[in-house]
Amino acid sequence: MRNLKLTLEYDGTHYFGFQRQPHHPTIQEALEKALSQLLSQKVKIAGASSRTDSGVHAEAQVVNFHTSHPCDLRTLQKGLNALLPPDIVVKDVREVPPEFHARYHAKWKTYEYRIWNHPLPSPLHAIRAHHVRHRLNLSAMRCAARILRGRHNFSSFCAAGGAAKNHVRHIRLLNIKREGPLVLVRIQANGFLYHMVRNIVGALIEVGKEELSVEELKKILKAKDRRLAPPTAPAGALTLVAVSY
Amino acid sequence: MRNLKLTLEYDGTHYFGFQRQPHHPTIQEALEKALSQLLSQKVKIAGASSRTDSGVHAEAQVVNFHTSHPCDLRTLQKGLNALLPPDIVVKDVREVPPEFHARYHAKWKTYEYRIWNHPLPSPLHAIRAHHVRHRLNLSAMRCAARILRGRHNFSSFCAAGGAAKNHVRHIRLLNIKREGPLVLVRIQANGFLYHMVRNIVGALIEVGKEELSVEELKKILKAKDRRLAPPTAPAGALTLVAVSY
Repeated sequence: MRNLKLTLEYDGTHYFGFQRQPHHPTIQEALEKALSQLLSQKVKIAGASSRTDSGVHAEAQVVNFHTSHPCDLRTLQKGLNALLPPDIVVKDVREVPPEFHARYHAKWKTYEYRIWNHPLPSPLHAIRAHHVRHRLNLSAMRCAARILRGRHNFSSFCAAGGAAKNHVRHIRLLNIKREGPLVLVRIQANGFLYHMVRNIVGALIEVGKEELSVEELKKILKAKDRRLAPPTAPAGALTLVAVSY
Repeated sequence: MRNLKLTLEYDGTHYFGFQRQPHHPTIQEALEKALSQLLSQKVKIAGASSRTDSGVHAEAQVVNFHTSHPCDLRTLQKGLNALLPPDIVVKDVREVPPEFHARYHAKWKTYEYRIWNHPLPSPLHAIRAHHVRHRLNLSAMRCAARILRGRHNFSSFCAAGGAAKNHVRHIRLLNIKREGPLVLVRIQANGFLYHMVRNIVGALIEVGKEELSVEELKKILKAKDRRLAPPTAPAGALTLVAVSY
């Protein structure tokens, strides 16, 4: 059996997240369907970040699957890109050691959240971005980011419905930068709880609007109680940008 | 009567161009409908670049209309943006002298054409861009641009169906730059014939692919015969970026 690793880019707008679910289109379903058709065998893939929400995008989602098919990797990639809908592209295909698992072996995952911070919306430039009219105070947001960075129990930023029992995660990087009217939040951690990125961004936005102080955010983190934290930021502005092994 | 000038940004993907036509959604129709509703009077607008094709976008389309309504301009802008669909935004509203006409008084119009020049398509980054797999030779394209710049008869780049009798136009600016995998063609002229930008871009792409030489392009321009020129580049990658008066 060969173990193949694929790297995918996709616009998640029209999908109900990565993971297969009945009666709704998902990335996993589209990819497994194309793979099974090309390899003439049933294929089951594992995704690095498989619990992503409806509407979340990926610049480099990683998946792997086992197959006995002797296919050429370039031919497989071309075939997949011809069969997949235009909002999903296979960027890379390679053979990996048999024990490699896209999810279990992922060390760090990096997400980017895009905020269009301008009084007016922009049909051309606010692509996959959450519109925030109020001018954000980036210095305050960066102070808040310093509180969240490091190893903490993130229960206050974990939505009900997640399967994880241990709520301790390590945020290695949490950067906020402005590019014209776009504010980009980049966050890297060893794992994310259910809705954790969107809950953290929701809190950072409140801090940026000066509706929540950095001191209050510190208290929310310490309280380990989701009910205290600000609302979840919308999914359509979130992109999985990298998975490292 | 007041004369009001509006500046619009829109994603033209779902419209059959700017100018009103029966049985198809157009930018003009959407805007006139919202204006008539807000001002409780029938409003007819004139657009700077009204003959734009189906699917073409605008970063700053300019329109004007006359009204006797004493509305406040900020309130009008807010009302329009609340009524218009999210793919059209009014960026600016101002009162102009009674004789101002968005089309007749336009001196220069600037368009940008986006090419995604990469072996693979990109669902996230090839937004409103024409996909060209073959690596483009930008030096050759810039040589070709130098041939086209200036005052010429552009009959070879004018599609049948245009109303213009005089085919002489003045291209003041024709720049090509690479930004990672994106190639951006920017063209400014005192006016454009029917499909002229897309026909010029179609020719530049052939030069970039080294399937047409600069010498051949020179001959095509001189021949004043559309049948000799390469195919028209697709509309969805074209944006009207500025109109100057």
